[in-house]
Amino acid sequence: MTAHRKLHLNAFIMESGHHEGAWRLPGSDPHATVDVAHFQNLARIAERGKLDSLFLADSPSLWGSVGRRPAAVLEPTILLTALATVTEHIGLIATMSTTYNEPFNLARRFASLDHVSRGRAGWNIVTTADLAAARNFNLEVLPNHSDRYARAAEFVDVALKLWDGWDEDAIVGDKEHGVWASDDRVHAADHVGEHFRVAGPLNVSRSPQGRPLLVQAGSSEDGKDFAARYAEAVFTAQQTLADLQAFYADVKARAVGFGRDPDTIKILPGIVPAIGSTEAEAKELEAELDRLINPVYAVRQLEEALRLRPGDLALDRPLPADLPTEDEIEGAKSRYTLIVELARRENLTVRQLIGRLGGGRGHWTFAGTPEQVADVIQHRFSNGAADGFNIMAPVLPRGLEDFVDHVVPILQRRGLFRTEYEGANLRDNYGLAPVRSQRLLQGAAS
Amino acid sequence: MTAHRKLHLNAFIMESGHHEGAWRLPGSDPHATVDVAHFQNLARIAERGKLDSLFLADSPSLWGSVGRRPAAVLEPTILLTALATVTEHIGLIATMSTTYNEPFNLARRFASLDHVSRGRAGWNIVTTADLAAARNFNLEVLPNHSDRYARAAEFVDVALKLWDGWDEDAIVGDKEHGVWASDDRVHAADHVGEHFRVAGPLNVSRSPQGRPLLVQAGSSEDGKDFAARYAEAVFTAQQTLADLQAFYADVKARAVGFGRDPDTIKILPGIVPAIGSTEAEAKELEAELDRLINPVYAVRQLEEALRLRPGDLALDRPLPADLPTEDEIEGAKSRYTLIVELARRENLTVRQLIGRLGGGRGHWTFAGTPEQVADVIQHRFSNGAADGFNIMAPVLPRGLEDFVDHVVPILQRRGLFRTEYEGANLRDNYGLAPVRSQRLLQGAAS
Repeated sequence: MTAHRKLHLNAFIMESGHHEGAWRLPGSDPHATVDVAHFQNLARIAERGKLDSLFLADSPSLWGSVGRRPAAVLEPTILLTALATVTEHIGLIATMSTTYNEPFNLARRFASLDHVSRGRAGWNIVTTADLAAARNFNLEVLPNHSDRYARAAEFVDVALKLWDGWDEDAIVGDKEHGVWASDDRVHAADHVGEHFRVAGPLNVSRSPQGRPLLVQAGSSEDGKDFAARYAEAVFTAQQTLADLQAFYADVKARAVGFGRDPDTIKILPGIVPAIGSTEAEAKELEAELDRLINPVYAVRQLEEALRLRPGDLALDRPLPADLPTEDEIEGAKSRYTLIVELARRENLTVRQLIGRLGGGRGHWTFAGTPEQVADVIQHRFSNGAADGFNIMAPVLPRGLEDFVDHVVPILQRRGLFRTEYEGANLRDNYGLAPVRSQRLLQGAAS
Repeated sequence: MTAHRKLHLNAFIMESGHHEGAWRLPGSDPHATVDVAHFQNLARIAERGKLDSLFLADSPSLWGSVGRRPAAVLEPTILLTALATVTEHIGLIATMSTTYNEPFNLARRFASLDHVSRGRAGWNIVTTADLAAARNFNLEVLPNHSDRYARAAEFVDVALKLWDGWDEDAIVGDKEHGVWASDDRVHAADHVGEHFRVAGPLNVSRSPQGRPLLVQAGSSEDGKDFAARYAEAVFTAQQTLADLQAFYADVKARAVGFGRDPDTIKILPGIVPAIGSTEAEAKELEAELDRLINPVYAVRQLEEALRLRPGDLALDRPLPADLPTEDEIEGAKSRYTLIVELARRENLTVRQLIGRLGGGRGHWTFAGTPEQVADVIQHRFSNGAADGFNIMAPVLPRGLEDFVDHVVPILQRRGLFRTEYEGANLRDNYGLAPVRSQRLLQGAAS
C-alpha cells in the first residue's frame, strides 16, 4: 500500500437502475433492458468518468417476477461486445456461470471478447445459486454449494490451460514457407479431471491480455477461498464498515495463504449512492424510489429468498424468529445471512427491509451530496475496508451521470482517482502485471 | 416462382479468404483472423453491395493444422455482434452446434444478437461432425450421425418454445400500477424430453424477429429432412448443375411433405468466384493461389477427411480404389462423398484434387470475368438449381469488393438482385413473413 494508492471504480450497469422502482420514474424507458443504445450511452458516460470497468451481473434464468421490474437481460458477453465497439479504455466484466457452461465454450467467448475489445475482458466467476437456473439445464434440484465450487475450481483450471495454450509468439505468419503458426507453440490442454475432459487447444489465438481478468463475487467460506486463490477483483455486498474490514482482512490473508501478493486482489464492495445537490434532495430521491416499490412482488421475493411459504411474512411485522441458518441454505449463502442480519441489527419490519433491499438488493445504500458520497468512499477506502467500489446507481443513466460529473471530480482533486487511463487494457486499469505464457516464463527461468 | 423472383446473396466471410493460400498473398495480414476491424470492413463492403447477409461457419475445435492456414476463429455470435454495430441492414448468420451447447444458452445468445442488431440474427444449425470437437466436450468418440440429428431436432424444438415464451405484447410497462410485464403473456417452456429438461421462460424478451432465421447446411439424408422441416435457408456444397438440380428438387419436395410452401425455404449453394477483368486474369489469380498451397499440410488433411493413414496418399496418383462408403462415415457424410466423387468424375490426381479443394473446401469454384460470373449465377438460378448463392471470395477483402463492385451491378441491371434493402430485418431480406407468437395466432384463429 503506497502513498499513491488509487481507488478502483466500476459501473455496475443494468436497465433503468439498481433501485427496483427506477423503471417507474417518468424518464425511464420500460424497454431499456434490451436496448443496446441505452447501454452504449451508459458505457460512454462511465468512460468519460475514467472508471475502471463496466460490470454486468447475470444468471441463466428469469430472475424474480416479470411484473415487478424489467426482467429481460441480454446475454452479457454479447452486450459487452456491443459496448466494446463504442469505447476504448473501459474494462468489460461479464458474469458467467461455471455450473451451466462448458469450459471450452466459455474460454472461447472471453478470448473473443478480449480480442474484439483489444484487451478489456473480465470474467466474474459465479456458480449460480438459483433453482430456476438449474431447471433450465436438465436438473430438478440445485447442485449443492460445495459441489458447485468443486466444479468451479476445475472449470477455471481448464479455462486457464486453454487460454495459455497459445504462446505469445505462436503466430509466425511465415508467408515464404507457408507456415501460419508454429506447431510447437500451440499446446493441447489434455485435461482429464473429475468434471471435465477437454483436449484443446482452444481455437482462438492468445488474446491481448492473455486471458480475461478474473473476478469473483461469492462471500461464503467456499467463495472467499475461491476468490483468494483465483480472483484479481472481488465484488462483495457488505453493509457496515466493521463487516467490510473483517471481509477485507480475511480475503487478503487467505490470498497471502495461497502465496499471493495481497495487492493483486482488489476488494470492491457495492455502493448504491443516491446523489442530490443537498442532503435533503438526496433523501427525497431515495424516498421517492421507495414509494415506487410494489410490495406485492417484493414480499413474494423476500419469502423466496428466506425459504418461506407465500403468506409467511406480514408487511408491518419483523421477520419470524425461526429462520434457517446459513448452513441449511444451498443457494446464495452470504446474501441470505446479510438480509437476516440487516433486519435483526436494525430491527426492521418487512416493509422497511423491503425498502432497504429494493434500493440495492442487499448492497450498501447511501444518500447524500457529492461531497458526502466522496467522503464515505474515502473513509472506507482509507480504513482497510475497500480498494474501490462497484457503483450501483439507483437510477440510470441519471445516477451514473451524477456520479461521474460530480463525485469523480472530487475524488480526482483529492488525488484518489485517475484523471487519465494509465494504459491500454483492463489489467492496466487495475494496476496488474501482464499475463505471460507458461512456456515463455519457463524459458526465461531456465 | 414469380416473374419478380430475386436472387439471395450472402457473403460467407472468414480471414484472408476461402482459398487456403490467400493468407500468403503480399497484401494479406496473418492476424486478420482475430482482427475485428478486418471483419467490420468486410461487413461494410457486403452491405454496400446490398447482400442479404453475412455468414460465419464454425466448429468448437481447432480446425486442421495451425501451420497450414489461419486457424483461430472468434466465437461467431460475438464477432457478429461487433459487425451489427457498424451495419444497419445486412443479416448476421452464425453457425452454432446443437451437440455442444445447451438450448437455454443458445436461445438466449441468438435472442440477444437479434435485439442488438434490431432483427438481423440467423442461426445456421449444425450437429458438428469433427472428433476434435467431441474431445473438447468430455467425449472420446464422435456421437453417431443419427443420434446427433435426434438431439438437434429436440434442441430446435426447445429453442422455439423458449423464443415463443414471450408474446409480442408481454411488456406492458404500466408505471402507474407498477407492473412491468404481464405474467400471463410470458410462458414457461416446461420441456421434458429425451435429451433435455428445460423449464424456461427465457430471460430475454421477444426479439425483433421473434426468433433468428433458421438456416441449415447438412446435405446427408438426415440433413435434408432436417432442413425440409425447420430451415428457411439451406447452404450446400454441390459441384455440378445436375447435382444441384437434384438437391434443389429433393429438398423442396421434402419441405412440401412437411406441409410447407417451398418458397419459404431458400436453397443457397456456395460459389468460390475468382474474378478478373479478363478470363485469363481470373485463371491466373486461381493458379497463383493454387501455387500457394503447402502440399504437406493439404495431403495430411485429405488423408484425415478420407479416414486414411499418413502416407496413404501420393501427390501425383489418383485416390486409392478401396475407400469407405458414405454409410461407414460418422462425420461429414455429404462432404466426404463430394470429395470422392469429384476426384473420380474428373479423374484427378491427389495434387489436382488438393488444388480444387484448397480453393473452396469442396465448394464450386469458378474463374472468369464479372460478366461470366453473373452468367453462371443466373444460369443456375434460372434452371431450378438455386435461389441464390453463398459468395465465398477466394481472397478477402479483395474478392468481395470485386464481387460487390463488378458482379452485383450486372445482376442488378438484369433485374435479378435488389438495388435497395426491402425492409428492416433479415426476414425481410429473404422475403419471409414475420414470426407471430403462438398465443396471438391462436387468439386470431379463435
